[in-house]
Amino acid sequence: MTTTEISLKMVFDRWYASIKSCDTLLDNLSNENLQKEIAPGKNRGIYLLGHLIAVHDDMLILLDLGEKLYPELNEPFIKSPDKAVVQLPLAAELRSFWTNQCEVLKQKFDSLKPEQWFERHTAVSAEDFAKEPHRNKLNIIITRTSHLQYHMGQLVLLK
Amino acid sequence: MTTTEISLKMVFDRWYASIKSCDTLLDNLSNENLQKEIAPGKNRGIYLLGHLIAVHDDMLILLDLGEKLYPELNEPFIKSPDKAVVQLPLAAELRSFWTNQCEVLKQKFDSLKPEQWFERHTAVSAEDFAKEPHRNKLNIIITRTSHLQYHMGQLVLLK
Repeated sequence: MTTTEISLKMVFDRWYASIKSCDTLLDNLSNENLQKEIAPGKNRGIYLLGHLIAVHDDMLILLDLGEKLYPELNEPFIKSPDKAVVQLPLAAELRSFWTNQCEVLKQKFDSLKPEQWFERHTAVSAEDFAKEPHRNKLNIIITRTSHLQYHMGQLVLLK
Repeated sequence: MTTTEISLKMVFDRWYASIKSCDTLLDNLSNENLQKEIAPGKNRGIYLLGHLIAVHDDMLILLDLGEKLYPELNEPFIKSPDKAVVQLPLAAELRSFWTNQCEVLKQKFDSLKPEQWFERHTAVSAEDFAKEPHRNKLNIIITRTSHLQYHMGQLVLLK
C-alpha cells in the first residue's frame, strides 16, 4: 500500500466509523427523545438530524456526484435555525432519509478512483486550486467528518 | 506537492483549525461557565477541558514523542467520570496547561519528517502494523481531531 492509499483508507475509515456511531446513537434514541432539546434552549435532536442530512446532501454537489436527494431540507435545516420553521418532517421520515442517504453516499464514493479524490471540489476555482491543491474532494470528507462528530457530541446528550 | 504531502497538510490543517476553534471557545467561556454542566446531569465544562488535556497528553506516548506533561490528569479526567473526584485543578490552571500543551505538541509534531507520520504508533505491534499500515502516527492525529470536535460540540453549549 502506498502512503496515498493509506491516507485515503484512514480518512474513509474515520468517516464510516463516525456514520456507524451515529447509526448506533440514533438506534438508541426514540422519536420522542429526538423532539427534545440537547440542552435547555438549544437545538432539538430532530433539528440536528435534519441538519446532518442536509449537510451531507450538499456533499453530493461539492463532490460533483449528482443532485441532492433531499433539497427540501436546505431551507428548514441549514438556512433556518431550529424552531423557526413550524412544520418539520417527522423523525421517522428523517431516519429513513438518513439510512438511504448513507447507502447512496457510500455507493457514489466507491465509484471514484483514488486519484479523483485529489481533484478539486466544485466550490473552488481552477485558479485557486492550482495554488491550494488541498482544497480537493478528500478534504470534503475530512471536514464533514469533523462536523458530524461535533453534532454527535450533542445528540448523545439526549440519551 | 505530492498526494502524500497534500494528505498530511489536510490532516494537520483540520487538527490546528480545531485547536484554534477550541481556543476561541475557551476565550468566550468564563471560569464560572466552565463549572457548569453542559446539560442537566451531564459532564461539567471543567471536566471536559481536563479530559481533552489528558487525552492530548497521551498522544505524546502514542507518537513516541516523550513523557506526558500532566500525568496527574489521567486519574481524574480519564479513569474517573465527572464528579467522582472532589478536588480538581482550578479552571485557570487547566487553561494554562492547555495553552502550554498546544505549543509543545506543535513543536514536537513539527520535529517529525513526513514519512515518520506513516510509521507505527506505540500501541500497535510490529506484526499487526505489517498487516494494518493505517495504524500509524498520522491516524492518531485523525482520531484525536474527531475526539476534540465531539467534545467541542458539547463545550459550546456553555455559551
